[in-house]
Amino acid sequence: MQAYTLAKCNQVGYRSSVPYRPFEDQNCSIAGALAIVGERWTLLVLREVLLGRRRFQEIKRNTGVATNILADRLETLVEHGVLERRLYSEQPESYEYVPTPKGRDAIPVLVALMQWGDRHLARDGPPRVLVHTECGHDADPAMHCSHCDEQVGPGTLRVRPGPGAKGHQRDEPLLPATL
Amino acid sequence: MQAYTLAKCNQVGYRSSVPYRPFEDQNCSIAGALAIVGERWTLLVLREVLLGRRRFQEIKRNTGVATNILADRLETLVEHGVLERRLYSEQPESYEYVPTPKGRDAIPVLVALMQWGDRHLARDGPPRVLVHTECGHDADPAMHCSHCDEQVGPGTLRVRPGPGAKGHQRDEPLLPATL
Repeated sequence: MQAYTLAKCNQVGYRSSVPYRPFEDQNCSIAGALAIVGERWTLLVLREVLLGRRRFQEIKRNTGVATNILADRLETLVEHGVLERRLYSEQPESYEYVPTPKGRDAIPVLVALMQWGDRHLARDGPPRVLVHTECGHDADPAMHCSHCDEQVGPGTLRVRPGPGAKGHQRDEPLLPATL
Repeated sequence: MQAYTLAKCNQVGYRSSVPYRPFEDQNCSIAGALAIVGERWTLLVLREVLLGRRRFQEIKRNTGVATNILADRLETLVEHGVLERRLYSEQPESYEYVPTPKGRDAIPVLVALMQWGDRHLARDGPPRVLVHTECGHDADPAMHCSHCDEQVGPGTLRVRPGPGAKGHQRDEPLLPATL
């Protein structure tokens, strides 16, 4: 059984027909990280929506994504319940894209990409700084263990097969992993 | 000035010439998340290396990536200092790929992708469970503020322009963002 639906842009044979603009002129650590390890557009589109830029033209302007690719990525994100498309003006008819709880749940992915980019790619310092509004201070969030509450140090996470493990995965030992 | 070097696979005009296998049969939440929001191969290759599977054939077998794409992605990761290529056997001459500190710093990205996939895509439960070896318990790590140490709740992170902000970014207000 297929465990999840595959996004259209990741299906075999899918080819975007339009070249894309490189990420390098965006001066954004998330984009910087994605330029090395990430997908080209989807996470950037999500970044825009989570940063409150929710209209097609705004997202297009801020990412430089081609119209047809943006339309495709937004459709994919709506289809998978990551974004919701909402009418915000009837005359002229205009829509905005709002993150769903599933979309907001992806924030740690973007935060982690941004932190990685900040640490390893931002030669002139972080283009953006996170602020934790609860305490009002700049924050560089770190992962803490949900059991002991301590910060998860390097090399202290391992993986074991979970309830959803299948086939040979079930017999996987606790991996000598740093993940 | 260009703030960072762009990975070859993200440069304009780059086209992989070989179709890839879909992620869906890997029964992995990281792959599941990437099937919707991520790049196709690079993070999966990094996942393998961080899970201790460091040889070309192992990585190839576990991801299903085509030989030339894998060679290209490994080269990119080595080139960007994310992985290090090491001789592990002289006869026959064989190499393994070892994560650098920069590579290990990307662990939170993979953890966040895995958690997102676990929560939203893993119908039969998580295929893999994280264990925090310091306390010995299963862990679902959460982001905590580096200033107040509290868990970062939904909607409590904002962004402000940082020292590396450029041009119009410098004048960006504290965004009404959920990021």
